[in-house]
Amino acid sequence: MSMELSLAELAQHLGAELRGDGNITIRGVAALQEAGADQVSFLANSGYQHHLKDSSAGAVIIVEALADQVPGAALVVKDPYLCFARTTQIFDNRPLPKPGVHPSAFVDDTARLGNDVYIGPKAVIGPGVEIGDRTEIGAGTVVGDNSIIGSDCVLNPNITIYHGVCIGNFVRVQSGTVIGGDGFGYAPNRGKWERIAQLGGVRIGNHVEIGANTCIDRGALGDTIIEDHVILDNLIQIAHNVKVGEGTAMAGCVGIAGSTEIGRNCTLAGGVGLAGHLKLTDGVHISGMTLVTNSILEPGAYASGTSHMPVHEWRRSAARFKQLDSMAKRLQKLEKSQEGKA
Amino acid sequence: MSMELSLAELAQHLGAELRGDGNITIRGVAALQEAGADQVSFLANSGYQHHLKDSSAGAVIIVEALADQVPGAALVVKDPYLCFARTTQIFDNRPLPKPGVHPSAFVDDTARLGNDVYIGPKAVIGPGVEIGDRTEIGAGTVVGDNSIIGSDCVLNPNITIYHGVCIGNFVRVQSGTVIGGDGFGYAPNRGKWERIAQLGGVRIGNHVEIGANTCIDRGALGDTIIEDHVILDNLIQIAHNVKVGEGTAMAGCVGIAGSTEIGRNCTLAGGVGLAGHLKLTDGVHISGMTLVTNSILEPGAYASGTSHMPVHEWRRSAARFKQLDSMAKRLQKLEKSQEGKA
Amino acid sequence: MSMELSLAELAQHLGAELRGDGNITIRGVAALQEAGADQVSFLANSGYQHHLKDSSAGAVIIVEALADQVPGAALVVKDPYLCFARTTQIFDNRPLPKPGVHPSAFVDDTARLGNDVYIGPKAVIGPGVEIGDRTEIGAGTVVGDNSIIGSDCVLNPNITIYHGVCIGNFVRVQSGTVIGGDGFGYAPNRGKWERIAQLGGVRIGNHVEIGANTCIDRGALGDTIIEDHVILDNLIQIAHNVKVGEGTAMAGCVGIAGSTEIGRNCTLAGGVGLAGHLKLTDGVHISGMTLVTNSILEPGAYASGTSHMPVHEWRRSAARFKQLDSMAKRLQKLEKSQEGKA
Repeated sequence: MSMELSLAELAQHLGAELRGDGNITIRGVAALQEAGADQVSFLANSGYQHHLKDSSAGAVIIVEALADQVPGAALVVKDPYLCFARTTQIFDNRPLPKPGVHPSAFVDDTARLGNDVYIGPKAVIGPGVEIGDRTEIGAGTVVGDNSIIGSDCVLNPNITIYHGVCIGNFVRVQSGTVIGGDGFGYAPNRGKWERIAQLGGVRIGNHVEIGANTCIDRGALGDTIIEDHVILDNLIQIAHNVKVGEGTAMAGCVGIAGSTEIGRNCTLAGGVGLAGHLKLTDGVHISGMTLVTNSILEPGAYASGTSHMPVHEWRRSAARFKQLDSMAKRLQKLEKSQEGKA
Repeated sequence: MSMELSLAELAQHLGAELRGDGNITIRGVAALQEAGADQVSFLANSGYQHHLKDSSAGAVIIVEALADQVPGAALVVKDPYLCFARTTQIFDNRPLPKPGVHPSAFVDDTARLGNDVYIGPKAVIGPGVEIGDRTEIGAGTVVGDNSIIGSDCVLNPNITIYHGVCIGNFVRVQSGTVIGGDGFGYAPNRGKWERIAQLGGVRIGNHVEIGANTCIDRGALGDTIIEDHVILDNLIQIAHNVKVGEGTAMAGCVGIAGSTEIGRNCTLAGGVGLAGHLKLTDGVHISGMTLVTNSILEPGAYASGTSHMPVHEWRRSAARFKQLDSMAKRLQKLEKSQEGKA
Repeated sequence: MSMELSLAELAQHLGAELRGDGNITIRGVAALQEAGADQVSFLANSGYQHHLKDSSAGAVIIVEALADQVPGAALVVKDPYLCFARTTQIFDNRPLPKPGVHPSAFVDDTARLGNDVYIGPKAVIGPGVEIGDRTEIGAGTVVGDNSIIGSDCVLNPNITIYHGVCIGNFVRVQSGTVIGGDGFGYAPNRGKWERIAQLGGVRIGNHVEIGANTCIDRGALGDTIIEDHVILDNLIQIAHNVKVGEGTAMAGCVGIAGSTEIGRNCTLAGGVGLAGHLKLTDGVHISGMTLVTNSILEPGAYASGTSHMPVHEWRRSAARFKQLDSMAKRLQKLEKSQEGKA
């Protein structure tokens, strides 16, 4: 699994301007403080600039303006962080399985597999499923009836895709994730609940990334939709008929209730909760653990809640929070009395 | 998988009063704005009433008072939403597997399977397990030793049921859910933790619905109990020895700490957190992302926290929250000084 | 699976001082109110002391000072709760599988298994994997290429361990958990996201306990690290390059963002969220659902947020929270005006 290439080759691969000896052999990527002579590093955040002069990195990916501060070779680019991301992909050490269906997998006779597909041990591919070229299905992953998975996807082990789910190309899903489970829809019936069968499906675009143990429910009538270039972290709950716009990112433990529509290029930090039937316009950014109970029609940054404080001080603030309305009214009364005297 | 029936048959099935042509063929359910001539729709929320007049639905499920506003046929009922729920079940398109044990499943010799049970590919049924008639066990699902699963249940793929779990009839569980895992119990021992073996089990009633990637831990000494007609969404944490009363509903990402008892017909919205060893009486309704740290002995609606605001305004409010006690004391001082002058 | 021993044997096993008849047969553990003559109980919390006199327990684990209040036999120890924990382990009723590789498992030829290892049905052990003596791998669990799992571990069913993960000895993991999934790292690229391949791994120490459906991501460059004696509950998110110090405990639904370092012997209650790149010193205790946005360098207890209140009162407090800064300024103005008059 080990990759090595010359610095000149790496520069060419990345479209970077090489300054220094292109013959150095590069075998990996590391942080400035840890990189050795056969590793490339990067400086994307000026907060780490002081690490430059002592770095033993074989080469540093860096912007033009700082390139002369690199002790060794430099790879000069406009966006070092983006270039670092591409570099990690070159040195990706994830084991790549050989295409083919593992003898212990079960693939239904009516499933259609593209070229160079990999189906791992104990995976289960249901009737009518279509899987595109070069897609990997990990060990123990189950794909339900008639679902369609595009080409160049990676479904890691122990994922569950229900029936009637449609996934685009270049989609990566981490383990334990469930796509197409029943949405949580019930009609109340005198203290009991009558199930609303979830007749819709899930449609996931291209270049979508989905973390581990995340849930994306199928729609009640129409589909739940995840557009292209969306990235979702672990343990996220996407309820039925949610729509997530292109390029939107969500960190871990976010929960989105049913039928909410999120615009393009939004970011939801960890633990954010969105109530159901809301609309968030494009370019909305929500801070960690914020509760959103109304639609957000203006782009911008939003937050709720409070952050940590010593518990004995917190107890007093939390108690006073319950008196806030009374405090506000008493304040008004004092102001009026003051006015009367002025 | 496609179902079709005449509107007259549908009306009879639903116990609805038919107004209009009973010979229309109905092939599905859709929202008012999207339904075609062979689909039935419904009006359960007056907010959607304006969609009535332009709807192309073959028939609309509706209350008596509004029935004359339906352009086509009407199915008149008392509770259109409940009737809609039943209609979705008629048109449920979930693929139904043929009864039988898939050759790639492993069923221990000592397990007892009822009539017309389905055991999917790669499923594992442990020693001493009992599975009731017509129950479906999905691909890759594991049922641990001596667990009992009732009749007419649906366990989707990749679920884990530990040993000694007892599940009633008509229970549906979505993928990735874990029932009977060890509760989180440890005795502190000089900076380390001594494990408390979890000797209890889990008992789940009839007609319970459980979402995806949810966890219901086994009890430490006694059992964790989920009563009949409880509905649980995805990514919920039910700790050891929790008891959830009949008909209670929990939305996604709820967390319940150990030994807490929740009454009947409660609703917990998404992201709610309940501390351990609490009691919630019947009919308690908790808003999204609320923290509950004390027992709630009065039925009613409860909430905590704050909702989103623009981040620059939020920063000021959050900072002032930390000064609340001081503000309250200063307000009192002003009031006293005022009184002194009056 | 049933265990029985004499009270004298149990006392010896626990290092407890026996007061009473050592010939009683003990067959289990139960709470004071529920224990029968063949069960041992314990009193660890003075809140339950009133149950002592009516308890039918065969013996009670108790401190010296209260031993004379036990109606039957007593096992006198310094720390009854710790002793109770050890007692539950003696009576642990978890079915123990016989060592061996189940014929339906798939173990790669290059994997190395220690002595008395158990590999359950449909489990998948990848190339180059090492598994230590007496370790149990549950049904359907997948261990990725070259991962190393120590001795005396219990990996329950349907767990996913990615490649290059290193787990110590005496580690227990509940079902559905994912260890070594890709960290959530992407460089923004004009509305799209360029993936940062996650080149690091996960290192987990000895005596670590991990709950169900929890996620521990692999590091981006270096490793994600969980030190010895850490205990993690269900549905926890540990992001890439997080470090969790020895003896730290986290309850369910906690989320830790990337590169945050948590000290030793910390406790994080349920639903706590930690932002990324923080440091928490040793001995920090965080209350349920607290948001931590800055490093905590002083040991102690911390909290944020507010707790539940009736929803109509809450609405007023939550509305006033948004006016807090204005209220604070108006208060200051009144105070100044007051001072002017004094």
